[in-house]
Amino acid sequence: MTAPKKTGHQTIDFNNPPVIISTASIVGPEEGAGPLASFFDKIIEDDHYGEKTWEKAERRMLEKAMNMSLQKAGMNPSQVDYMLAGDLLNQIISANYTAKALGIPFLGLYGACSTMYESMLLGAVLIDGGFAQYVLVGTGSHYATAERQHRFPVEQGVQKAMTAQRTVTGCAAMLLAAQGQGPRITRATVGKAIDLGQGDAMDMGSAMAPAAADTIAAHLSDTAADPSAFDMIITGDLGVYGKKLAQELLLQKGFDIRERFTDCGILIYSPDQDTHAGGSGCGCSAVVTCGHLVQQLNSGKFKRVLGIGTGALFSPLATGQGENIPGIAHAVVMETA
Amino acid sequence: MTAPKKTGHQTIDFNNPPVIISTASIVGPEEGAGPLASFFDKIIEDDHYGEKTWEKAERRMLEKAMNMSLQKAGMNPSQVDYMLAGDLLNQIISANYTAKALGIPFLGLYGACSTMYESMLLGAVLIDGGFAQYVLVGTGSHYATAERQHRFPVEQGVQKAMTAQRTVTGCAAMLLAAQGQGPRITRATVGKAIDLGQGDAMDMGSAMAPAAADTIAAHLSDTAADPSAFDMIITGDLGVYGKKLAQELLLQKGFDIRERFTDCGILIYSPDQDTHAGGSGCGCSAVVTCGHLVQQLNSGKFKRVLGIGTGALFSPLATGQGENIPGIAHAVVMETA
Repeated sequence: MTAPKKTGHQTIDFNNPPVIISTASIVGPEEGAGPLASFFDKIIEDDHYGEKTWEKAERRMLEKAMNMSLQKAGMNPSQVDYMLAGDLLNQIISANYTAKALGIPFLGLYGACSTMYESMLLGAVLIDGGFAQYVLVGTGSHYATAERQHRFPVEQGVQKAMTAQRTVTGCAAMLLAAQGQGPRITRATVGKAIDLGQGDAMDMGSAMAPAAADTIAAHLSDTAADPSAFDMIITGDLGVYGKKLAQELLLQKGFDIRERFTDCGILIYSPDQDTHAGGSGCGCSAVVTCGHLVQQLNSGKFKRVLGIGTGALFSPLATGQGENIPGIAHAVVMETA
Repeated sequence: MTAPKKTGHQTIDFNNPPVIISTASIVGPEEGAGPLASFFDKIIEDDHYGEKTWEKAERRMLEKAMNMSLQKAGMNPSQVDYMLAGDLLNQIISANYTAKALGIPFLGLYGACSTMYESMLLGAVLIDGGFAQYVLVGTGSHYATAERQHRFPVEQGVQKAMTAQRTVTGCAAMLLAAQGQGPRITRATVGKAIDLGQGDAMDMGSAMAPAAADTIAAHLSDTAADPSAFDMIITGDLGVYGKKLAQELLLQKGFDIRERFTDCGILIYSPDQDTHAGGSGCGCSAVVTCGHLVQQLNSGKFKRVLGIGTGALFSPLATGQGENIPGIAHAVVMETA
C-alpha cells in the first residue's frame, strides 16, 4: 500500500512506478517543419487530414495516435483497462469520439493545455494503486479548431500580438503499464488554479507562468530535490515570455532552475518559423513529451526529466464577463531505471 | 494493496472504502418547489443569486456548496488533499474559478452530466489507493447557462419537445475521507462512450440510455450482484423516456432492474411542474445524490444504493457537423456499514 501523502504536500511518490511502454505522436505540416520533426511518428501534409472539417481532422489524429501507441505495444483496445483523455474543444469532443471509437472504459478530463500531464498523473495513480494494468492516455489540439473557438477563425487573418503563441496541430498518446520496458513515472505533483491578474487572451504564457512556478516550487519543496537532479525541467507551453516570467517567479521563491529549464512551446518551432512566442495547446506538451522526451529517455540520453503540463483556464465567455485567466500546472517525473 | 482488477472487468472493488463524511447542496427556485426540497441545504430565491450573469451565479453556487460541505465537516480548504470537479460550461469555468477561490490542488474533469459520479469514482480511487486523506468533489449546473450554451437562450422562448428535459439549477459537493462517519463508496464501474445512433439535442435521455444500460449491465455482471441487493438503482438524468429505454435495453441483456429502478431527473420535479421529461444537467444527479440519497443512507432508510451518473456527450458543433450524441455512464455503490 502506498504510504499516506504528507499533509500540505502536493506531490505523490509512486511505490510501483508505472512504465511508459509505448508512445505515439502525429503532427501537422508546421510542426513537421520544425526542429523536432524526426521524433514524430507521422507528419500529415494537409491539416484537413482527408476530413471535411478541422474538428474531424483533430479527432482523426487523436484516434490515430491512440491506435499507433497500442500497435507499438502489440495490444488491442480490449486489453486496456481505462482510457483517460481530454482536449481543448468544447465538451472535449476529440476525446469523446475517440473513446467511442476505441470502446475502452473512459474518463474525460479537462485541464486545458495541461491535459497530457493530468492524464499521465491520473493514469499513474490508477496503475500504482492497483486499479489497472494498462491505461491509455492522450490528448491533442489543432491550430485551426483552437483559433476559431478561442479567438478568431484563421480565415479572418487577424494580426497577432508578439506575445501570442501558435496552437500546435498534433496529437499524442502514451500507454502506461504496471510492468514492462521503458521510462517510469516516479512522482507527480497536482497543481492549484493560480491567478495573478492576467486577462489578455493574446498572452497565455504569462497567464500560465504563475501556476507553473507554483507547481515547480511545490515539487522541489515537497521532494527536497535539487534542480540538478534532472536532465531537463520542461514546461508545456509557456513560450518565450511565459518561461521568462516563470523563472523570475521561481527565483523570487528561492529556486534557480535556469540551467535546466526549457519549454515544449519553445522547442517545437524554430525562430524562423514566425510562430511568435512559440507553440501552445494540448498537443504541444503531448507531442514533445511522447515524441522527443520519451525517446531521449529510452535512448539513455536523458535519465530523469521533470515535465510540467501547463494550462490556461481561458474561456472567451468568462473573459467577456471581466474575469482574469487563471492557470494550472501538473508535474510528472519520468526516469529510467 | 488493492487486488488487481480482473481483465475485461470495468468494476473496482475498494479495499479501504472511502467515507462520505459530509455533503452539501444548493438549488434554484424551481428545484426548491419540487418534492425533494426538504433535502437541500439552501434554496435560492432568484436564479441570479445576486450576480450580474447566470454564469457567475452558477459559479457562486458551486463555491457555496463546496464551502458548506467543508464547514459541515469542520474543515478548511488547506486540509483537503485534492479537489475534483467539472461542469457543463465550456472550459468547465465554474469548476476552474471555484478551484482558484479555494486554492486546493485541482484536477478538472469533463463527463457532461456524469461528472458527479466521475468525480466520486476518482476521489475514491485517490483515497483507497492511499494517495489522499481528504478529497472534495462536486459539480453543478444552471438552467439558463446550459440552455444558452447548448440550445437556445431562455429569453428566446423556443418551444420544447416533450422529450426535452430541464437543466437543474443546483450545485452540490461531497467530502470524501479515508476515515470517519458516513456511508462508504464500496465499488465503482467506469463506463464506455456508447452511441446507438441518437442525434437529437431535444432528447438527451435516449442518447444516454444505452450507456446507462451498458454500465449497469457491466456492474451487475462484474460483481454477480442481484438488483435486489440494492434499495435503489438510480440513474442521473435519463428522464421519463430515457429511463424506459434503459430498462428495455437491460431486459434485452437479461437484467430486470424495474423493481428498484428510478432516476434523479424524475424524482427532482413533480409532474405538475411542467418540466417535460424531467431534470437533467450535472446538478441533477449531484443535488439528488448529495441531498436525498446520502441523507437516506445516513438515516438508515437505505442500506445500499447503486447510483449511475449519466452524461450526454453532446456538442452543438459536433451535431452541426452531422455527428450523433454518444452517452457515458459511471456507477458508484454507496452503502452503510
